[in-house]
Amino acid sequence: MANLATAITSLIESKKYGTLRDILVTMNAADIAALFEDLEPEMLPRLFRLLPKELAADTFVEMDSDSQEMLIKGFSDSELKEVIDELYIDDAVDIVEEMPANVVKRILAQADPDTRKLINELLKYPDDSAGSMMTTEYVELRPNLTVEDAIKTIRRTGIDKETINICYVTRADRTLYGYVTIRRLILSQPEMTIGDLAETNVISCRTMDDQETVAQTLSKYDLLALPVVDGENRLVGIVTVDDAIDVLQEEATEDIEKMAAITPSDKPYLKTGVLALYVHRIPWLCILMVAAIFTELVINHFSNLMSVQFQSFISAMLLACIPMLMDTGGNAGNQASVTIIRGISLGEIEFKDLPRVIFKEWRISLLAGATLAVVNFGKMMLMYAIVYSGPDYFNHQFAPYLLVAVTVSIALCCTVFLAKFIGCSLPILAKKIGFDPAVMAGPFITTIVDVTSLLILFGLALMVVPHNVV
Amino acid sequence: MANLATAITSLIESKKYGTLRDILVTMNAADIAALFEDLEPEMLPRLFRLLPKELAADTFVEMDSDSQEMLIKGFSDSELKEVIDELYIDDAVDIVEEMPANVVKRILAQADPDTRKLINELLKYPDDSAGSMMTTEYVELRPNLTVEDAIKTIRRTGIDKETINICYVTRADRTLYGYVTIRRLILSQPEMTIGDLAETNVISCRTMDDQETVAQTLSKYDLLALPVVDGENRLVGIVTVDDAIDVLQEEATEDIEKMAAITPSDKPYLKTGVLALYVHRIPWLCILMVAAIFTELVINHFSNLMSVQFQSFISAMLLACIPMLMDTGGNAGNQASVTIIRGISLGEIEFKDLPRVIFKEWRISLLAGATLAVVNFGKMMLMYAIVYSGPDYFNHQFAPYLLVAVTVSIALCCTVFLAKFIGCSLPILAKKIGFDPAVMAGPFITTIVDVTSLLILFGLALMVVPHNVV
Repeated sequence: MANLATAITSLIESKKYGTLRDILVTMNAADIAALFEDLEPEMLPRLFRLLPKELAADTFVEMDSDSQEMLIKGFSDSELKEVIDELYIDDAVDIVEEMPANVVKRILAQADPDTRKLINELLKYPDDSAGSMMTTEYVELRPNLTVEDAIKTIRRTGIDKETINICYVTRADRTLYGYVTIRRLILSQPEMTIGDLAETNVISCRTMDDQETVAQTLSKYDLLALPVVDGENRLVGIVTVDDAIDVLQEEATEDIEKMAAITPSDKPYLKTGVLALYVHRIPWLCILMVAAIFTELVINHFSNLMSVQFQSFISAMLLACIPMLMDTGGNAGNQASVTIIRGISLGEIEFKDLPRVIFKEWRISLLAGATLAVVNFGKMMLMYAIVYSGPDYFNHQFAPYLLVAVTVSIALCCTVFLAKFIGCSLPILAKKIGFDPAVMAGPFITTIVDVTSLLILFGLALMVVPHNVV
Repeated sequence: MANLATAITSLIESKKYGTLRDILVTMNAADIAALFEDLEPEMLPRLFRLLPKELAADTFVEMDSDSQEMLIKGFSDSELKEVIDELYIDDAVDIVEEMPANVVKRILAQADPDTRKLINELLKYPDDSAGSMMTTEYVELRPNLTVEDAIKTIRRTGIDKETINICYVTRADRTLYGYVTIRRLILSQPEMTIGDLAETNVISCRTMDDQETVAQTLSKYDLLALPVVDGENRLVGIVTVDDAIDVLQEEATEDIEKMAAITPSDKPYLKTGVLALYVHRIPWLCILMVAAIFTELVINHFSNLMSVQFQSFISAMLLACIPMLMDTGGNAGNQASVTIIRGISLGEIEFKDLPRVIFKEWRISLLAGATLAVVNFGKMMLMYAIVYSGPDYFNHQFAPYLLVAVTVSIALCCTVFLAKFIGCSLPILAKKIGFDPAVMAGPFITTIVDVTSLLILFGLALMVVPHNVV
């Protein structure tokens, strides 16, 4: 892409607009938009004017909002009008939502009155709702039409519709009756009526439904478009599959970001400024750092206690195991929580599944805890043979080391058990009481598991390891 | 759903098959498949036989492979043949891939010879390739056809095609010439030729392309289907958007699982057995636990050294800060790595962006490191006032505590700096040398950051904190 950008730049500089146009028309809108982002901003208006009307509008939609704003500012009123007229309503609304007030005003002033009315209506729906995702440019048919007339209607009006692959059938009061695919129309006899052909078992969503639910519905039922109805079941728009894919991708990114303790943003990484990235990341880093006060206090309290009760090499050994214990607990908890959070996002796991999930994780944690305890015990025995039996550590005294190894292994098993339990139940409970399950993941669970694993380790050590052994 | 399952069960027990059929035909395939999973397995064959042919095939595709296998085993040969004949080729291939050898043999025996040949051909493509995702049931047109003849062809052959929304135009040697949408056909004059109408600037993929790339292409260009060509640019199949969505969802889940140190599986959580989940999770837990040997050795070595050099309360204070330091380093590294990994998955970040990414993370880490160091210093001062100035700890000696606080704050800043650097560069380098970036995330980076942060802390402490201060 970089090389293409260089070539284009030199063509602009030598004013070879004919050649430029020939190159651009062979490209796809998404690729042209990507190319534009590699060029100097002041070149964009000249290049944009070379594009045929439809390709120009498609490219405009694919650009990021900063470049869109810059282009709009460079447009004459008639150029702006031309682009807006070519846009689908849902794309126009998405653009308007991102622009500052003065640009919005110019856009609305240039849009024709019908478009302006539609944009204003769609802007009323909350962000992230089906209403804000939908387009109002769909094909609407009545049940009493014949196939022949329907195809004539589509021929007459279809050019402005976002899709004609699925046509929606409504009654006289505009309530949703069913749908008929263009495939069905083409393959049917011309004299049949739409009412006979229509599939009336139709899946729809409400204007206020969450965009993630809408996208999951399209994905679950393999739909190309989903009708959106109002409170009285009147058809008000459709959501198309391309927008659903974008939402699914965004939501997956958001979940991943939240699990990694980042406040989600909706811009690609390379387009986001350093300060914005910093602001999205620092709150969680600070909160979790401060939350580590608890582990600090626990360690300090017990290391004082242990320095009285135990020989120093035993205290040191127990303290040295803390990172391993906390990391393993954190990993085990994360494995459970992340699996459950993804399951919730994909609609596979609901609140009613809580007992099943806990029972499943309980069995997994028994297996995993036992395995890890055994591996850890073996590892510690090996370490004794290689490192710890020497003069710096246990001075060949095997008995106290053995008790430390047993303590750490049991603490590890308990930690894994606890981590899996918290990891699997917290996200489901969070969802139930209306919190975001993904925020509950990683960071929060790690902090809880950290403190409890320390309490288990020190509590066990004070019970199991003999005091003041020489 | 649970209540519906109960109702259906009692209807089956009272043999009300007419009522059952009336209920089932109003439902969607995906919902029927979900219902079937809530029922006793032995009821499925009876219910399945009630479904109309097409709905039966759609439902079959939506079921999980265990239930599919069970149903096939219960089918008579003619029932099996009926289902297979209704399936789209790509779905049939997906099913065959999941079945044990003896079931595959029966399926192939019942498929008609053409279908059998196609299934066998598609099975040859590697899993996760475009070839294994594609269907061969598309509409193919020649450039010299008129629109009228093309529509006639579609009417005649369209019934068996997976989609007619996009028709592909090929030359006599079957090389891809372009595509024409059904919308374009419907809206055009009947006497125009396909060659005139076809969009020849067509995006395609190769049979051996990775399924994730294919799905990203469909998503990037908002396509409903993507043509698949062989080495000689001959059209051999198409990939439809519904399958692309499934791949995108699967790949996001896989990335999330890998980041959480889980070997990815392709089954939903509630359908996966305890043993399988255990097997997917335990290797990483063990590897990372054993990798913690390094942190253990570092702590043990330095705590011995420190017990000679420092007063015990200073050693204890430094040791108590370790979890905070390691967790914060891990979180900071994770934030960077997870953002970059997602960017790589979405095709937003490539190897050439490495310098930009490093420069960006470098600036973020300066800001974040400084903030965290300041917050930590403030926190430690507050802790002194409240807890540590007492007789158990520093006995009101502020000077050594201040030096400890400075040491920890500087170590924290360096750790964040290092963690962000490793977190952002490792995934990109991993991708470049052919490793999976997601596996590089969380766990690996955490282990590296753990050890280095300890070395920084102890190294600094030995330099900054006065030895044997009383």
